[in-house]
Amino acid sequence: MPTSPYVTLIDCPDAKGIVHKVTGVLFEHDLNIDDQGQFVAKDTGRFFMRTSFDADPETFDLASVRDALQAIVPEGGRVRVERKRPRDVVILATKEPHCLGDLLIRHAYGELNARVQAVVSNHAKLGGLVASFGIPFHHVPWSRAMTRHEHEAGVLEVLDTYNPELLVLAKYMRILTPEFVARYPHRIINIHHSFLPAFIGAKPYHQAYKRGVKLIGATAHFVTDNLDEGPIIAQDVVHVDHGKSVRDMTRAGHNVETVVLSEALRLVLDDRVFVDRNRTVIFD
Amino acid sequence: MPTSPYVTLIDCPDAKGIVHKVTGVLFEHDLNIDDQGQFVAKDTGRFFMRTSFDADPETFDLASVRDALQAIVPEGGRVRVERKRPRDVVILATKEPHCLGDLLIRHAYGELNARVQAVVSNHAKLGGLVASFGIPFHHVPWSRAMTRHEHEAGVLEVLDTYNPELLVLAKYMRILTPEFVARYPHRIINIHHSFLPAFIGAKPYHQAYKRGVKLIGATAHFVTDNLDEGPIIAQDVVHVDHGKSVRDMTRAGHNVETVVLSEALRLVLDDRVFVDRNRTVIFD
Amino acid sequence: MPTSPYVTLIDCPDAKGIVHKVTGVLFEHDLNIDDQGQFVAKDTGRFFMRTSFDADPETFDLASVRDALQAIVPEGGRVRVERKRPRDVVILATKEPHCLGDLLIRHAYGELNARVQAVVSNHAKLGGLVASFGIPFHHVPWSRAMTRHEHEAGVLEVLDTYNPELLVLAKYMRILTPEFVARYPHRIINIHHSFLPAFIGAKPYHQAYKRGVKLIGATAHFVTDNLDEGPIIAQDVVHVDHGKSVRDMTRAGHNVETVVLSEALRLVLDDRVFVDRNRTVIFD
Amino acid sequence: MPTSPYVTLIDCPDAKGIVHKVTGVLFEHDLNIDDQGQFVAKDTGRFFMRTSFDADPETFDLASVRDALQAIVPEGGRVRVERKRPRDVVILATKEPHCLGDLLIRHAYGELNARVQAVVSNHAKLGGLVASFGIPFHHVPWSRAMTRHEHEAGVLEVLDTYNPELLVLAKYMRILTPEFVARYPHRIINIHHSFLPAFIGAKPYHQAYKRGVKLIGATAHFVTDNLDEGPIIAQDVVHVDHGKSVRDMTRAGHNVETVVLSEALRLVLDDRVFVDRNRTVIFD
Repeated sequence: MPTSPYVTLIDCPDAKGIVHKVTGVLFEHDLNIDDQGQFVAKDTGRFFMRTSFDADPETFDLASVRDALQAIVPEGGRVRVERKRPRDVVILATKEPHCLGDLLIRHAYGELNARVQAVVSNHAKLGGLVASFGIPFHHVPWSRAMTRHEHEAGVLEVLDTYNPELLVLAKYMRILTPEFVARYPHRIINIHHSFLPAFIGAKPYHQAYKRGVKLIGATAHFVTDNLDEGPIIAQDVVHVDHGKSVRDMTRAGHNVETVVLSEALRLVLDDRVFVDRNRTVIFD
Repeated sequence: MPTSPYVTLIDCPDAKGIVHKVTGVLFEHDLNIDDQGQFVAKDTGRFFMRTSFDADPETFDLASVRDALQAIVPEGGRVRVERKRPRDVVILATKEPHCLGDLLIRHAYGELNARVQAVVSNHAKLGGLVASFGIPFHHVPWSRAMTRHEHEAGVLEVLDTYNPELLVLAKYMRILTPEFVARYPHRIINIHHSFLPAFIGAKPYHQAYKRGVKLIGATAHFVTDNLDEGPIIAQDVVHVDHGKSVRDMTRAGHNVETVVLSEALRLVLDDRVFVDRNRTVIFD
Repeated sequence: MPTSPYVTLIDCPDAKGIVHKVTGVLFEHDLNIDDQGQFVAKDTGRFFMRTSFDADPETFDLASVRDALQAIVPEGGRVRVERKRPRDVVILATKEPHCLGDLLIRHAYGELNARVQAVVSNHAKLGGLVASFGIPFHHVPWSRAMTRHEHEAGVLEVLDTYNPELLVLAKYMRILTPEFVARYPHRIINIHHSFLPAFIGAKPYHQAYKRGVKLIGATAHFVTDNLDEGPIIAQDVVHVDHGKSVRDMTRAGHNVETVVLSEALRLVLDDRVFVDRNRTVIFD
Repeated sequence: MPTSPYVTLIDCPDAKGIVHKVTGVLFEHDLNIDDQGQFVAKDTGRFFMRTSFDADPETFDLASVRDALQAIVPEGGRVRVERKRPRDVVILATKEPHCLGDLLIRHAYGELNARVQAVVSNHAKLGGLVASFGIPFHHVPWSRAMTRHEHEAGVLEVLDTYNPELLVLAKYMRILTPEFVARYPHRIINIHHSFLPAFIGAKPYHQAYKRGVKLIGATAHFVTDNLDEGPIIAQDVVHVDHGKSVRDMTRAGHNVETVVLSEALRLVLDDRVFVDRNRTVIFD
């Protein structure tokens, strides 16, 4: 009897006894629970629960479990029951290869629980790297003569042929319009450098060098309408010192960006991330 | 209506529906759950659950909840329901003040959820430090003429006057006998330096210096009969380089020991730590 | 023949052959160099060098070495030759005990290469803690009726009786006037929390909680006229997650503040920190 | 006038005035020093110095500088003056792709200051990955019928066609004979997992899981005759908890191995690493 991993994801207003009711449904369906976590956000009054379990796909009645759960969660709740499988992902990149290369390698050796359908870029530069992995590469050039919407129309045309479940911005240097973002709500992951203190404006690594920061960080987050201010998925830092040049700091920053984006993507692909207003709740 | 925080701790053989049953009991008693976590150790088949909740101490029937829970957990299970309160702690130390001083300061300003009843030492050196905090200090000298049991008899005599719930070895440099350890099962916390690779024998920082390690670490663990090999509660490291002298490495090691012991103690005092054979399960 | 550690600190415009010339002076004076570091900041064209060495204080002619070095550094250079000794330090604090307590403990057991002369506070709260270490405590109350300068006049009156070489702001919650800062140029060390992203305004930990940050950090820096924007001496972070309450995050932040301030102070007291415009050059 | 980066590396018995003499040679040759560091290992009495500088390759007389330096260092000293250039590297791997893939990506986009000549493996598995980067792959199968020397003879035959300056063991799971190691003294870099405490024997991640470690680390080191005990170049750790499966821990370990090997290789390729007996001295 082959079994397969499933996961239920519940996100609803908190209510007394909710865990008891949910686990009652799982118990009645005789599921072998593998891992379970729940969390109540006090300030928003929202309840989150993730349960992973094994079941025989031949006999498992996914709809029955989902409907039973939906029936017991408070109004305004959202229930998902899913069989774990690789997600369809399109990566957007510009000219920097560090994050893209890392994702392609992980994809190539099966560590990424995803199917990378294609890479889309506003530059031609990364085409060779992508081709060596046998992944389609789409160059959608941008020129100053184009509006942002015009350029995005070209990108969306490509995306529509793939219908990806998730977009990963692997150092994609174009700002997305609210209309674009609205098409992929909490389904676009971005990575950017982070400094203490924060630096506004161009050439952040030059500013960080001048300011003599001792830490260089990276933040992976969901993209929302507020540029670089969506719900944070993962963050990390590396230590630097005055002896590091702008180039050294940039390299260190790229390394930490690579690690943090890969970690954030793992969490999302493994269905571990909920969004609660402008923050994440992560079961890891 | 004043409320107070309580916690239930369940540790039992895993069984289908256990979360459902436990949450049923909590639901029936109409408890306001604050935080809840559960874990099944696949290899040992053991289930762990921690629930914290608020209740009015005037009316809350602790025994009723405990009995109801005990009735539904599988045989071999252990149920605790406790009102959160400062634990009675005795600290054992020898000559190094870094961990002891940190704990005394945290205790003094109310951050340690504990009542430090006394400090016991095999040396007189730390008496002044302890006195300045108004904590009783007991010097139980050890001499080469004494057996380990003879010395421990003196320590136990002091401990018996305090009846502590927890012993903290804040760089206590005497090895405890199995008989001593057996009196405080999983109730003695120790801290020691940790290196990659490990160094056997005396003067570990000298060895670490000679070997040019790039990391210096510390491990806090429960004391069992196997010296320094009990269940690990917390670990951390700091980076060092070739330019650090033995003295620098020792100082760095002391700093990380201080941080790790304090963190481990916080977890234990907050009832977040279970022991599963020779490892810990920690809800944090 | 007793020897004592000395240090030379050179900070001057870069010039070809400067290391050769400086080491020539040290060689001629037959000094036993213990540790030496130098650095050229490319963008500011500034040269920094730190040399520590042993010499017999009975016979060592400090002025001769200093004059010889001063003679060979380019115009605009600064030469210091100093015998290592505990610095006179006054700590300023307000109500939070974590940084202050840590410094007092380190001072008490001789780890801080400093003489803590006194603690000054705008609140009475920490008086008991300070007293238990036998350190003078000066309460200089602030009221809304006072201007900032009026309050600082009271603080300066106390400071003038001690003539400290260094001020440490261990969570001192008053903003200093430029006039006050000018009296202690690069001689005031401050610590503050740091977040990614940065949060402006009140209750930063509440903001960090709402935003779901995954890192909480601290920055120690010299105080200049730009609030919280002086040269950075040390920074570090700890990881947090959505399950941490505002109180948990605050505690984690306090821990990292404590570690970072203590580390920054060690570097400064050991004469390892130069200032180059708005950043530091640190030989560690 | 094109300039190129050069580096001098001096490793000799310590002697008074050595920095003065060395910088005198550099000054006489009118070199534009970019970065310089020196270190004296007190216990071994060894002096190390690294100086990087720019010079016009058309006119720069490398041999003259080298001879002048060699003339002034004490007997037993070693002087190298080198123009910075990509080193010839052969990577050895077995079945795990994480370290190899990362190095190939970095090589592909020019971040590795090396020319990866070939990959040699005792398994066929990684051939496809290597081929996609256009790098020669040599499968030198091992069978139980072969002695270690017999297998190594096949590997050495391949290596001799490339004459690499450096070998990188990117999870190469064969133990090398002393004869093999002797052919590449301090020119073989290895990476392995590191735990606190250390685990001896097979399946270390299973042991780490059972033991409930809170840290998983990696160590990159030069290979010497003592298995996994050569001079350490780089180390790092990641935090884990009881909820991580053996597979999770393995993945976390692979990630940190990847980061640490890449960092160690950067340091070596940039001529920043000296060996002092069984430890490294690193100017970074």
